Amino acid sequence: MAIQAPRGTRDVLPGQVYKWHYVESMYRQICREFGFGEIRTPIFEDTELFVRGVGETTDVVQKEMYTFEDKGGRSITLKPEVTAPVVRAFIEHKLYADTQPFKAYYITPCFRYERPQSGRLRAFHQFGIEIIGSPYASADAEVISLAMLFFERLGLKNLELRINSVGCPKCRKEYGKRLRDFLAQKLPQLCETCKTRYNTNPMRIIDCKEEKCQKAIEGIPLMIDYICQECRDHFENLKEHLEGMGMVYTIDPAIVRGLDYYTKTAFEIVSRDIGSQGTVCGGGRYDGLVEECGGPDTPGIGFGLGIERLLLTLESQGIEIEKEEDTDLFVASIGCEAAKMSLSIAYKLRAAGVKAECDHMGRSLRAQMKYSDKLGAKFTIVLGDQELSQEMVAVKNMASGEETKVELDIQTIKNTIMTEKGSK
Amino acid sequence: MAIQAPRGTRDVLPGQVYKWHYVESMYRQICREFGFGEIRTPIFEDTELFVRGVGETTDVVQKEMYTFEDKGGRSITLKPEVTAPVVRAFIEHKLYADTQPFKAYYITPCFRYERPQSGRLRAFHQFGIEIIGSPYASADAEVISLAMLFFERLGLKNLELRINSVGCPKCRKEYGKRLRDFLAQKLPQLCETCKTRYNTNPMRIIDCKEEKCQKAIEGIPLMIDYICQECRDHFENLKEHLEGMGMVYTIDPAIVRGLDYYTKTAFEIVSRDIGSQGTVCGGGRYDGLVEECGGPDTPGIGFGLGIERLLLTLESQGIEIEKEEDTDLFVASIGCEAAKMSLSIAYKLRAAGVKAECDHMGRSLRAQMKYSDKLGAKFTIVLGDQELSQEMVAVKNMASGEETKVELDIQTIKNTIMTEKGSK
Repeated sequence: MAIQAPRGTRDVLPGQVYKWHYVESMYRQICREFGFGEIRTPIFEDTELFVRGVGETTDVVQKEMYTFEDKGGRSITLKPEVTAPVVRAFIEHKLYADTQPFKAYYITPCFRYERPQSGRLRAFHQFGIEIIGSPYASADAEVISLAMLFFERLGLKNLELRINSVGCPKCRKEYGKRLRDFLAQKLPQLCETCKTRYNTNPMRIIDCKEEKCQKAIEGIPLMIDYICQECRDHFENLKEHLEGMGMVYTIDPAIVRGLDYYTKTAFEIVSRDIGSQGTVCGGGRYDGLVEECGGPDTPGIGFGLGIERLLLTLESQGIEIEKEEDTDLFVASIGCEAAKMSLSIAYKLRAAGVKAECDHMGRSLRAQMKYSDKLGAKFTIVLGDQELSQEMVAVKNMASGEETKVELDIQTIKNTIMTEKGSK
Repeated sequence: MAIQAPRGTRDVLPGQVYKWHYVESMYRQICREFGFGEIRTPIFEDTELFVRGVGETTDVVQKEMYTFEDKGGRSITLKPEVTAPVVRAFIEHKLYADTQPFKAYYITPCFRYERPQSGRLRAFHQFGIEIIGSPYASADAEVISLAMLFFERLGLKNLELRINSVGCPKCRKEYGKRLRDFLAQKLPQLCETCKTRYNTNPMRIIDCKEEKCQKAIEGIPLMIDYICQECRDHFENLKEHLEGMGMVYTIDPAIVRGLDYYTKTAFEIVSRDIGSQGTVCGGGRYDGLVEECGGPDTPGIGFGLGIERLLLTLESQGIEIEKEEDTDLFVASIGCEAAKMSLSIAYKLRAAGVKAECDHMGRSLRAQMKYSDKLGAKFTIVLGDQELSQEMVAVKNMASGEETKVELDIQTIKNTIMTEKGSK
């Protein structure tokens, strides 16, 4: 019996990969323009990193991690998110001793054991950036502006930037008390998950998707109304910076984010399109995370965005991505000798930078021409006894049908093709 | 205590990643020129795939796999190699029903639990290609020629192409008998591993790195002397194709390769440099693998090459890779108002395609200029009250020290920079 890809994982086949190449190269380019260098962290980390960094009580850590023991008995986990690994690398390589802030972007697979559904895989892929070392709201605004400009360049429409402040440990203490007081009376009306959250992470109840919970918590105290002066100043600065850049935003006090590490700024970019509603990008500040992971007290901010979700949103908005260029030249052949020559000629053309192809299936000339067509070859040459003995060959332009007879010489063939391609 | 990256894994930091970008983009380009499209398979697969595909008796499957149960009780394995996953995808997506051959390349992490050493990590990275569907030696030659041209373009020297034929199941049967007869007498002199190999995979004894084994097996029967007519014809064809392309090769009957699936062609590209000796690329034909994995009887050939090993070889040969371009422009500021403006101006310049940076650390002007220098910014502007009120700014070329006073307008600043960059 044939073996299938594991549930919740997906192959990207050569016929589809151009879409990935497109968004990846757009993403790399914008990150370069914003001064972010790429960081690559391993696929797995010590489990402890996520327990400490993401938070023991989060859904991710409690239910969704691919955790296992390696042959040396260490508990390792396939990364469910990337901020904790980047912070771990920041500490391990003492990057806090370099000029600050540290600015890095990533493109990586992530892993969460969830129920697979449209746009949500167990092995999914993320773009993201982090600025570590700056406590200033200008860093928050820069992070948000990169995401917004990226979406704009991709041509996405109907996106809404929503921002919030989730406070700092100082103001969250006072708020947590009020929150619990309020929720204590509502407990019977809440779902089972939220009943647990009441003890572990009550802020996440605001985020619950259950209708009955949303109804029960009407009038719930919101963090934004309880933030301290420092958090308020930071939030005001962020708004000023966003306005300075011409960014439209709404304040959404319900933004909580699923991971424990967020402080002050939390934001989401939401698609309001029918058929692709939902968060396409989310992020926030994590001023306590570096210290939590064993490094010096250092602030940070970043975002992550799911690539599969992004591709779905592009598709649902009817944004087409251009396919990559096809074969330049197909080298066809008649007869055994010429067939042998076809590969060496294709090879020499490739070495000269021409996208050349030849047959590997022992096809008849007719079948070769059909194959050439299928490959989308812009030009063909046919090698036969005559061509080999006279050292001349006809370069056929498949679009115009015109043939140009030239010397059977790599540079001459290349020039002929390039001239005709250029003149189109 | 700070958490470290797991043993045998490594971060690639922003300061080093340009080397990866360089070899990756060279690799993508050559693959495109040769008509290979990229395939991406998941990080993990059903364990069964590797047991069946790579072979139960191989070191990889017996000792080196990262195998674990997911939360659904399925045994999954982080991919230790990529040919079996590509073959799995080929079957699962019925790519055998498309025009043949299927040509794909990959760039991916792989995982083997081995003793970490120089150039050998537990989480390493591979380039590779596969041609599935062609039984012809022209496909073998194309695969080899891509690897050789790739190394040539990278500027690698002192590489040797070694080829062999490891036969097919038909001729290997006869050979296996002779091999066992020969080895039966040598058993007491062999290492423990080879004693096991005698029963499971005697051909791999030829490959043993133990000196005593190499001594004991002097005069061992070699596959190449026992291959059947079909395998011999295939090997002769391969040699002709290689010669047609101008490739120099040696025949090395000791090439066995560590994975069970190889048939007919096996090859290695070996660096003969002192300090970087060893195989930089290996591959071969696997005519039985698609069927073994549950698909129709379909031949295939490919190679894999370790990226870490490649980077080490480049380094040991003194081949320098150019760093990527630095910041175009640093937007410095004096005073609170100007500091706020600096981000929005940097943002608008970035949106216009300029690599612009500004300060996120509340630095003094002096410290900002030092930071700008550190970033390698080619130009700077300084925003102060005067610049803001007059809407004029001086663009300073950091190489020449020259200043050009222009309107404080994004397009004007961009044009000034681009003109000066172009005139260099």
